[in-house]
Amino acid sequence: MNIAATINDIRHCVRSARQAGKRVGLVPTMGALHAGHGSLIEQAAKECDYVVVSIFVNPTQFGPNEDFARYPRTFDQDVAYCQRLGADVIFAPTAEQMYPHPQRTWVEVEKLTDGLCGASRPGHFRGVTTVCAKLFNIVTPDVAYFGQKDAQQAVVIRRMVEDLNFPMTIRVCPIVREPDGLAMSSRNRYLSPAERQKAVCLYQALETCRRDFAQGCRAANGLIEHMRGLIEGAGGRIDYICIVDFETLEPVETITRPTLVAVAVFFGSTRLIDNCVLCLHQTENNVQ
Amino acid sequence: MNIAATINDIRHCVRSARQAGKRVGLVPTMGALHAGHGSLIEQAAKECDYVVVSIFVNPTQFGPNEDFARYPRTFDQDVAYCQRLGADVIFAPTAEQMYPHPQRTWVEVEKLTDGLCGASRPGHFRGVTTVCAKLFNIVTPDVAYFGQKDAQQAVVIRRMVEDLNFPMTIRVCPIVREPDGLAMSSRNRYLSPAERQKAVCLYQALETCRRDFAQGCRAANGLIEHMRGLIEGAGGRIDYICIVDFETLEPVETITRPTLVAVAVFFGSTRLIDNCVLCLHQTENNVQ
Repeated sequence: MNIAATINDIRHCVRSARQAGKRVGLVPTMGALHAGHGSLIEQAAKECDYVVVSIFVNPTQFGPNEDFARYPRTFDQDVAYCQRLGADVIFAPTAEQMYPHPQRTWVEVEKLTDGLCGASRPGHFRGVTTVCAKLFNIVTPDVAYFGQKDAQQAVVIRRMVEDLNFPMTIRVCPIVREPDGLAMSSRNRYLSPAERQKAVCLYQALETCRRDFAQGCRAANGLIEHMRGLIEGAGGRIDYICIVDFETLEPVETITRPTLVAVAVFFGSTRLIDNCVLCLHQTENNVQ
Repeated sequence: MNIAATINDIRHCVRSARQAGKRVGLVPTMGALHAGHGSLIEQAAKECDYVVVSIFVNPTQFGPNEDFARYPRTFDQDVAYCQRLGADVIFAPTAEQMYPHPQRTWVEVEKLTDGLCGASRPGHFRGVTTVCAKLFNIVTPDVAYFGQKDAQQAVVIRRMVEDLNFPMTIRVCPIVREPDGLAMSSRNRYLSPAERQKAVCLYQALETCRRDFAQGCRAANGLIEHMRGLIEGAGGRIDYICIVDFETLEPVETITRPTLVAVAVFFGSTRLIDNCVLCLHQTENNVQ
């Protein structure tokens, strides 16, 4: 497995792979890899002949009061993990490589970024879409892999790729969970043991929502209030609980089509997100 | 020469060319082709093995009170002209091909788009950068060709390509002029015979500016006032006369480095632009 630290290096690697007729997959990450990332790398390895994992803690997607400085950096373990899973090259640029002078050009996706995490984290998605556009242009993959855990990000990136005609496909892979149900996240390591125990309430609330829905509850407010009680009862401080259309991300009052239930909750100073998709018919299970 | 009306068609054409090892050049236009476009196509034909000319009157770069509806459309002549100059394919999509649903994703270049035409035409450059990003992703050229007549556009597109790491090169080609000096423009055909005669004052003012500069004048205000007198004397209504840094497009008071002199002037209801670059040393003549 190679490690490319510069844009020239990774372009050279990808060019060689492509000349050999290989299909190129990209898994963009900020490192601190866990089994969620692992599932993306494995999926890429199944579907592509040459797998690029990018590791870059992108400063432009963090707000001034967010955790950019203390975001976990575990490069050596990440490298070993990627190698074990069959990645072909890691692209690990410095901030100077990615932003050699003040960034003047921004890619913005309107409306889809207004609610949910976009409301709590102004500028976050502008940073995400801009760095993804850069990575897509640098790596020029055939397919890029994202996790459903960041549901809004997946919708936004899909829309960006469609609207700007990037010549590539976006694949969104299912959430990977700890044995007790907590969604895998690089930020889980911020949790104290007590917070870690409480945090499982996110998953439990979503499972309760699923059950309420399966029993016929279609009113978003009722579903939300039930979840709110469970999460607050467990000691979580709610940032948002939203029930929105799966594609437009617009609020839904009564569930009549594929619908995203998304939650963001603080445990201490750590903000975690999770979500599930409610489908009315069996066939809708493949909406992703 | 082929004509591709859909994104699939043009991608198919380019894929074949690339598989044959050809270097691909793109000349993005809005049609109504003149010798200025012709020089770009000829340059592309010199430097590339496969020349794509796109013809698309892009609605998103016109303001609500601008000339989108009456912008000249001369498709049959354009096709004949491209063929004569050695283009390999014309990409002429419909608006539905380019914008199949409401565009949510926009590419914006900050600061460089604040002044000059950006100040007079709010939203114009957002439309230009977004459609160019789309065209670059659809055609994936090795090189794209732009005219120096749209000087700010050239600076903005260069910066976009650099900031977003598009894997391609931007070439900016010199202004092509009528025998009397008027810069070629698709909008020249809007001019009445009387306006057409007056319009040459743009070129004459820029030539006067060059002479003032050659004689040692370095104060932007003095140069501007001399041009203003000439243009207003000839009956032009000035939108702007700006003397700005050639790269940052920030106003310059005293000329000490490569500097852009840019003018926008109305003749009747027709708005024309023109520019020249002032260089202190012979070697700076190649700044473009």
